[in-house]
Amino acid sequence: MDSETDILPALPGQRLQRGVARGLRALGFACVEEMVLATGLRVDIMALGPKGELWVVECKSCRDDFRTDRKWQGYLDYCDRFFWAVDADFPADLLPEGTGLMLADAYDAEILRMAPETPLAGARRKAMTQAFARHAALRLQALRDPMGAAGEGRL
Amino acid sequence: MDSETDILPALPGQRLQRGVARGLRALGFACVEEMVLATGLRVDIMALGPKGELWVVECKSCRDDFRTDRKWQGYLDYCDRFFWAVDADFPADLLPEGTGLMLADAYDAEILRMAPETPLAGARRKAMTQAFARHAALRLQALRDPMGAAGEGRL
Repeated sequence: MDSETDILPALPGQRLQRGVARGLRALGFACVEEMVLATGLRVDIMALGPKGELWVVECKSCRDDFRTDRKWQGYLDYCDRFFWAVDADFPADLLPEGTGLMLADAYDAEILRMAPETPLAGARRKAMTQAFARHAALRLQALRDPMGAAGEGRL
Repeated sequence: MDSETDILPALPGQRLQRGVARGLRALGFACVEEMVLATGLRVDIMALGPKGELWVVECKSCRDDFRTDRKWQGYLDYCDRFFWAVDADFPADLLPEGTGLMLADAYDAEILRMAPETPLAGARRKAMTQAFARHAALRLQALRDPMGAAGEGRL
């Protein structure tokens, strides 16, 4: 890692997101950030594993960030496993039992506690995988072709 | 469209790909380019529709580009509909019957002839949708975090 050329994201939560995405990629998962669920809730990271597993990771940069979170239980029905990702300074004993835990920074992440598995039903898995695919492809297209993504066609 | 700020792709085939992706987005499809199938074949455009439809579009920039294509029939088993995309100068009567046809340029595309529908079986649709999702998310991550995508972790 050449830290001279590695531009860090501005916000603490974004730095954790980047490290989690790197760490999960090393485990064979592809990640998208800020995906909106059917409920309107937005997850920090949705990860799709090599066998189609769907994991949600919520990144918490500080105690207050966790304490003000009223929505995390709404994610449990939309993933096979749910994790928190925090940095080394976070008081991890605040986090509820029965959830997964990753230790992260801007560069990497590791799983400290595996989340329990609550497999999605087939119909929801299918809908979530399609939603993940469309989210990722539309974001990619917007980066590759910003003029087209602005919705300004020729006609 | 402000053509002053719109950077055209270098190659004719890439210009068609961009126009097709824009045109399909207007129809509610999300597209990825250069996706590799399980067979090892690489498709120009794989598009995922709002109902989970999977379309393949092959872009042909000239007569020779089509005449040397020995692999297009290998795509038919991996999509619900198959299209060619060509520009206005292409001799469209060269193209085989029973396939779809789009007229495209760098800015947009329109469907001239709808492709026949040959719906994918459930297991293949599931595998293809997952492969599309992983392809799109990993490309997106590589653009957003090129240092991480280089596979150089901290540890």
